[in-house]
Amino acid sequence: MAGKRAQRTTGTQGPDGAAKVTISEIAREAGVSVPTVSRVVNGRSDVSPDTRARVEDLLHRHGYRRRPGAQGTRAALLDLVFNDLDSPWAVEIIRGVEEVAHEQGVGTVVSAIHDRAGAARQWMTNLRARASDGVILVTSVLESGLHDELRRLGVPLVVIDPAGSPATEVSTVGATNWAGGMAATEHLLGLGHRRIGFIAGPPRLLCSRARLDGYRAALDVAGVPADDELIVPGDFYHESGFTGANRLLDLDEPPTAIFAASDQMALGAIEALRQRGLRVPEDMSIVGFDDLPEVRWSSPPLTTVRQPLSDMGKLAARMVLDLARSVQPASPRVELSTELVVRASTARRRGA
Amino acid sequence: MAGKRAQRTTGTQGPDGAAKVTISEIAREAGVSVPTVSRVVNGRSDVSPDTRARVEDLLHRHGYRRRPGAQGTRAALLDLVFNDLDSPWAVEIIRGVEEVAHEQGVGTVVSAIHDRAGAARQWMTNLRARASDGVILVTSVLESGLHDELRRLGVPLVVIDPAGSPATEVSTVGATNWAGGMAATEHLLGLGHRRIGFIAGPPRLLCSRARLDGYRAALDVAGVPADDELIVPGDFYHESGFTGANRLLDLDEPPTAIFAASDQMALGAIEALRQRGLRVPEDMSIVGFDDLPEVRWSSPPLTTVRQPLSDMGKLAARMVLDLARSVQPASPRVELSTELVVRASTARRRGA
Repeated sequence: MAGKRAQRTTGTQGPDGAAKVTISEIAREAGVSVPTVSRVVNGRSDVSPDTRARVEDLLHRHGYRRRPGAQGTRAALLDLVFNDLDSPWAVEIIRGVEEVAHEQGVGTVVSAIHDRAGAARQWMTNLRARASDGVILVTSVLESGLHDELRRLGVPLVVIDPAGSPATEVSTVGATNWAGGMAATEHLLGLGHRRIGFIAGPPRLLCSRARLDGYRAALDVAGVPADDELIVPGDFYHESGFTGANRLLDLDEPPTAIFAASDQMALGAIEALRQRGLRVPEDMSIVGFDDLPEVRWSSPPLTTVRQPLSDMGKLAARMVLDLARSVQPASPRVELSTELVVRASTARRRGA
Repeated sequence: MAGKRAQRTTGTQGPDGAAKVTISEIAREAGVSVPTVSRVVNGRSDVSPDTRARVEDLLHRHGYRRRPGAQGTRAALLDLVFNDLDSPWAVEIIRGVEEVAHEQGVGTVVSAIHDRAGAARQWMTNLRARASDGVILVTSVLESGLHDELRRLGVPLVVIDPAGSPATEVSTVGATNWAGGMAATEHLLGLGHRRIGFIAGPPRLLCSRARLDGYRAALDVAGVPADDELIVPGDFYHESGFTGANRLLDLDEPPTAIFAASDQMALGAIEALRQRGLRVPEDMSIVGFDDLPEVRWSSPPLTTVRQPLSDMGKLAARMVLDLARSVQPASPRVELSTELVVRASTARRRGA
């Protein structure tokens, strides 16, 4: 145990255990930027062959040792970072990451940084102290300064479900949000619905936009004219689904079905209907998005678009552990496919 | 960073960094068992003063160094171990543990061992490899052999919500299950209900028994005779709540209210009622137990007994980090109080 641990401490030591060289020194000597040296260390492809050769030569001459993971030694820790742990799908991602990490003898360190720079800074300090072998970030919650710092440390990074436009050099794992939005809407169209309400997610998140575009595309393909008053704003949380459904029900010509861009909003919509004495699916069909474990147990069980959250966690763990061994992912941006799960909250439109 | 890490590797080295002594050697020389030496190392009180003095003297003479945590150095990792990560309350406990650990610069390593000896064994290997400073176990999922191994390693252990009778020398954090069962039943009695169904949890778990006994005690205090046909078995999962509610509804004289010993079973009961065209709470009041985040969003929002899961996680984290610094918990067995949360699934009995 002590031997293994000792090995992990020698990340920047030469083979003799004495001579040390940092990535910045290599960068200076090679006349390139620190991130470039990092990219070479991490085996990334986006470095010119000449630069790579020069940097690798210097790394070799100075006896720079890659982090243990990069040498085929078993990595010991990876960090899984959430903004908040109150999100009901966090446990699904943890489950997937933990399963893969556990198999490889790697511990999964779970953190929440609560959108606060102080907490993110503290996490970064802790990360350095524990010499983590890789980082999986759930949505791009890290300020870009910390992104840069991770790069300087040479710690491999994979982002799950990026909320914004990810920096191109970061590996990401997402879900096919656009296709999922289209599948949900097609399902409702297939049941004879023509006026289909949409409760949207926050527009700053790419996944929200993709789901909305999928909804619009399905209507367009079916030749059903889009009606902008059927699209109401939401923020993925329950309350906004409740409010959104009430707005839709108050329209002069309310929809006969609602597609909510998150399961929580779908549950909020069901509650709004219940309070008005309306039944799901008899009076209104409802589709969600996520397939959280608990929507199997909602009343009625929810028809929804499954995001393969635990599979996304598994894939992200494999990618980051590969990166730690300098294995490049086949593609830096992977989307796992969503799947429509039909349960009891949708039915044929009455009279259709 | 390297310095800190190096310090963590010297757990059993003498001050000169060369002479090493193990706990078993100390035990042999002192003529006591390995667990006894462990207890002394971990500052436990259940060791006779003579034995403690003899062992401490030997530890000192051999220059045995406690794990860093025990010396006031900041601990770097703690392990949080679940049987499965599919339990919807896992994330609540993770949140509490992570919050306290994060503040102290400690990483929270989350694992699931799936009731399989192989996985538990693998986890133990990983735990040793990462030199974790403490372990929080959620329910007593570890075989006793591994318990012993943890003790030999001198790794502090705290158990959350023990499922069975815990070994007396282990620190545990639970919730007041009996008082919670009583509070739920008193709430229904206060609404005029007299025939109150109970869907039980698995009898092998102490928390199930405590909830049932609380139900019985409340009936007894109110002078309402208990009727054993109103008590049906369950296993805490949704399906058993669905089945249990159907059994209660099929009685010649069905109850007017149901207390389910878990939120998931309460949601199953609500679905059984919906399928029969019965309304909650108009036709039947329902109370759950746990207060999972999602029951705020059930339809109707669920009246339930809140288990302070994230507070239990926080307390367990404080206890295990204290133990790592040889600070004894004020009490080895702590129960945090449950609290009745009244929402919309309960109402006065009709005609009451």
